[in-house]
Amino acid sequence: MAKFYGIGTGPGDSKLVTMEAAERLGDVAILYTPQPKKGGESLAKKIVSPYLKDTLIIKERHFPMSYNKEEKMLAWKEIAEEIKADVQNGHDVGFITLGDPMVYSTYSYLLELLKGDIETVTLAGISSFSNIASKIELPLVMDEESFAVIPVTAGAEKIEQALTLFDTVVLMKAASNIPLLTTLLKKLNLLDAAVVVSDVAMATEKITYSMRDINPEEKMSYFTTIIVKKRREQYK
Amino acid sequence: MAKFYGIGTGPGDSKLVTMEAAERLGDVAILYTPQPKKGGESLAKKIVSPYLKDTLIIKERHFPMSYNKEEKMLAWKEIAEEIKADVQNGHDVGFITLGDPMVYSTYSYLLELLKGDIETVTLAGISSFSNIASKIELPLVMDEESFAVIPVTAGAEKIEQALTLFDTVVLMKAASNIPLLTTLLKKLNLLDAAVVVSDVAMATEKITYSMRDINPEEKMSYFTTIIVKKRREQYK
Repeated sequence: MAKFYGIGTGPGDSKLVTMEAAERLGDVAILYTPQPKKGGESLAKKIVSPYLKDTLIIKERHFPMSYNKEEKMLAWKEIAEEIKADVQNGHDVGFITLGDPMVYSTYSYLLELLKGDIETVTLAGISSFSNIASKIELPLVMDEESFAVIPVTAGAEKIEQALTLFDTVVLMKAASNIPLLTTLLKKLNLLDAAVVVSDVAMATEKITYSMRDINPEEKMSYFTTIIVKKRREQYK
Repeated sequence: MAKFYGIGTGPGDSKLVTMEAAERLGDVAILYTPQPKKGGESLAKKIVSPYLKDTLIIKERHFPMSYNKEEKMLAWKEIAEEIKADVQNGHDVGFITLGDPMVYSTYSYLLELLKGDIETVTLAGISSFSNIASKIELPLVMDEESFAVIPVTAGAEKIEQALTLFDTVVLMKAASNIPLLTTLLKKLNLLDAAVVVSDVAMATEKITYSMRDINPEEKMSYFTTIIVKKRREQYK
């Protein structure tokens, strides 16, 4: 029976795709990909391009991310209906999403609309923070340690709690409020415990090993993550 | 110049290895693998076996996990010296570790001993909790949500704080104290928010969708993870 595959592409490099994801990408009949914003190729599509077969039907669709909820759900519903019809007509259908599909991916909305009606399979991908940690060889946690993953949009209070309670904190979407993060890290005496990584696994990758070297006013890449590791010295 | 590669194998299925890891596994000259405990093949070695070349030199070594710290470091130091010599003699050397090398892997100790002396490269792997989330199609986080990853050995107070503050909590090494987790989840009215997953991506995989269906006295697999997601209903 035909199935729907939600496929995590990893954060940016074609080689970070899993063997399973590459195999599925190579044998689905139809692949839904995000429509590039300003012409050109979408990042997710670029990542998977080495694995696609010549006969693949690619359906570029606009997947809204920052609309109001109602408008977003309406757009997703339309795409979900199209996917359902494709699968019900006997085609294996793929959908690609950056990083890990279960971590901050709008794919969750689509999955919610499809589950129950057609058979869905989700394939894990390397998340950006996991790749960052390996890239800079900074172990996130060992033994009894614990870590938190929190977006800057969660607000100052929650971020401060996470920084206080956890051994390691991964701050996602960091670029959206660098001044707030600088203030909090300074207050908690953690400026030097923070590694700032932009565009991991891309050509424009940039790594800064202390928050002191970041200008709070500088505009940073959308793909910026900060890892705060309190006991960094033990791994140096 | 010859390099050392620390390679994350993913949690249990050969197909969860990344393209990059498979490529490195296929071209290193020497691969260090954990010695199986009771004869037979180690899980990490079994996972990577499809990607190894015939001429590969495999060095099975005993990597202690639960010894006292001093004894552990001594054993790791010996292996580190051997690896250094291999690399300095011009061989590309690989080392495999289950899941993601930067998340609860004793590989961190080895890395600490090697960094600076030889060139090291760490390749990210799919972590068990990421694969579990995709497998059961339970999005870990969306939008402003945040999640925590905490081992049961962190203690009752820290686990309770995590469960109170975060939208989603991944409880690692859960089998070591199921009675404690049952008590805490009951107290916080989260028994039905907990999904219990053992041996993900293995033949013995087992999934239970509520903590109510777990007998606290039952001996569970070492590879048991519990994901507590407070707002699960929105994805049903």
